[in-house]
Amino acid sequence: MRAAVARIGGLAVVDVAEPEPGPGQVLVRTLACGICGSDLHAAADLRRFADLTAAVGGPGGLDPEQGVVFGHEFCAEVLGFGPDTQGELAAGTRVCSVPIVLGPSGPEGIGYSNRYPGGLAERMVLQEALLLRVPDALAAEHAALTEPLAVGEHAVNLARLQGDEACVVVGCGPIGLAVVAALKARGHGPVIAADFSPVRRRLAELLGADEVVDPAASSPYGRWEELGVPTRQMDRATLEMVGATIRGAVIFEAVGVPGVLRTIIREAPPKARVVVVGVCMETDHIEPFFAITRELELRFAFGYTRDEFAATLDRLGRGGMPLDALVTGVVGLDGVATAFDALANPGQHGKVLVRP
Amino acid sequence: MRAAVARIGGLAVVDVAEPEPGPGQVLVRTLACGICGSDLHAAADLRRFADLTAAVGGPGGLDPEQGVVFGHEFCAEVLGFGPDTQGELAAGTRVCSVPIVLGPSGPEGIGYSNRYPGGLAERMVLQEALLLRVPDALAAEHAALTEPLAVGEHAVNLARLQGDEACVVVGCGPIGLAVVAALKARGHGPVIAADFSPVRRRLAELLGADEVVDPAASSPYGRWEELGVPTRQMDRATLEMVGATIRGAVIFEAVGVPGVLRTIIREAPPKARVVVVGVCMETDHIEPFFAITRELELRFAFGYTRDEFAATLDRLGRGGMPLDALVTGVVGLDGVATAFDALANPGQHGKVLVRP
Repeated sequence: MRAAVARIGGLAVVDVAEPEPGPGQVLVRTLACGICGSDLHAAADLRRFADLTAAVGGPGGLDPEQGVVFGHEFCAEVLGFGPDTQGELAAGTRVCSVPIVLGPSGPEGIGYSNRYPGGLAERMVLQEALLLRVPDALAAEHAALTEPLAVGEHAVNLARLQGDEACVVVGCGPIGLAVVAALKARGHGPVIAADFSPVRRRLAELLGADEVVDPAASSPYGRWEELGVPTRQMDRATLEMVGATIRGAVIFEAVGVPGVLRTIIREAPPKARVVVVGVCMETDHIEPFFAITRELELRFAFGYTRDEFAATLDRLGRGGMPLDALVTGVVGLDGVATAFDALANPGQHGKVLVRP
Repeated sequence: MRAAVARIGGLAVVDVAEPEPGPGQVLVRTLACGICGSDLHAAADLRRFADLTAAVGGPGGLDPEQGVVFGHEFCAEVLGFGPDTQGELAAGTRVCSVPIVLGPSGPEGIGYSNRYPGGLAERMVLQEALLLRVPDALAAEHAALTEPLAVGEHAVNLARLQGDEACVVVGCGPIGLAVVAALKARGHGPVIAADFSPVRRRLAELLGADEVVDPAASSPYGRWEELGVPTRQMDRATLEMVGATIRGAVIFEAVGVPGVLRTIIREAPPKARVVVVGVCMETDHIEPFFAITRELELRFAFGYTRDEFAATLDRLGRGGMPLDALVTGVVGLDGVATAFDALANPGQHGKVLVRP
């Protein structure tokens, strides 16, 4: 089959071996698959990405010397079943799945494994037990957004909001947008979304952000007092002493490049909760004294549970979200390399999908 | 009165103006006062300390160009009352207090204000409303330990322990020891305490640490599996899927120097909670990818509430803690400068007290 294969040195569309479903696995045809920021990181330095993934104890299976087919944000249709399967879904049924497959040597990440190609290929194998049926009314391109939107769902769950916190979302790439969508789906807010890109600020507005901020023009952290969030410890302590209701602050870091967390820690009000959902793969600098004296709480978020993934797919199926606007590009396999290059300058894009 | 006055350039014992209690304030005689790690930081670079404190929005009142009398861990006895006081405590009554006083321009930190000398002076003014009577059976030297021990109480409260987490306390200076004491007072554990100093490891044992580790000989993070804490995300996910009970891990950072947090983040098991109670005043480096993929939670802790302070004093009054062992040095005002020098190499010490 044809696949966009990443190797040290670059991406190329080539013929690769047909994937074969093992026990409990299903062969599917890829209908649509998103390109993720982590794919860009991995493509930029495949060896470093493999080393980092191994160092954190992630699922095995990624040898940077061998080719890898990215793509973990997919919608696919069932083609056939491997051994030891139930086979209850008819051929042609459209499915999504968390991108995990159970190989003979343990779990592997679809799209980050040499053995299990991701959605930037014509066909994949998925784990039957993890398949979720895509609602009929939902286009495959939109169902492929389940994965990144589930990341937002998970980050908002980890934030343990009480309801009336002032929320600042720093970065309106697909993950920041997913956070905005998850916050507004639950009626939280005010939500202030910040991004240098006017394209992305417009997407944040479409997803319901109560206010968007261009950090080049004004600070996304400049509104605390106006929103009723005390910014001085002593003011807060005084309010606590008299039993006043104090509005909390939650900041979502959805950029994932060095320096952002440092700024957030410098600008956060006392007792703020910071949910770090941007994936920074570099060493970063922080000033702990600011975090300590303000008693900040940093919660690092990664992925989602299977329930959160399923809930997100359900939510998409119920409609009402501006999913078309989120998809700012669609390419075939031959367009993948160009799309990776274009996403190096991400300000023009929401999500770019591949239809193999 | 005589006081150890810190200025840019050094510490010296000199005569300073007698403190005068303002409205709501009480004049006290200092009986005993601990030297805190933050005092050492401040003495080492008073200007930088003042700038940092101002930058984080701490209580005002510290001009580095003027002299400051450190000392916020004190026990004192009542001498007399200022205007607008209740005056219910007899002269000679021994008291402790959170080190805050309400000046004409707002709250100020006793011991970090040019206007309100701390306990490294013969006399101080305290806020009447914040005074706590010291139990008769408690020596003044032991009551002066309330403040640092309350920091441990607060850090353990912030950790929101469920009961059976494996706890690692990194650093057994006075704050790490306070964390060990607070953990064991509530029956938590196992508590593994780590310090390079044999003196401090011995103190941790006296305070109830279930195990002490010399990081030069073995890693304090090497016991997770043995203690039933899963160290691989996939193992944890599998255990969660089958509904198994999973022992959590909580790591207390009580060193406060750059590099320790980075190591903790590298060595923490998935979903660990890290309570940062050491006060690092430098820029630090972390690797967010490790924190993200393991979904660590970092809670930065600072100080204590008045209730936690009072509960700590109560606990000390009930006896049973090896408080004598914690005090590894007692000096007069003339010994303060030498004690500051000695504490630059802190491995030989628990808490050093000053009796002005």
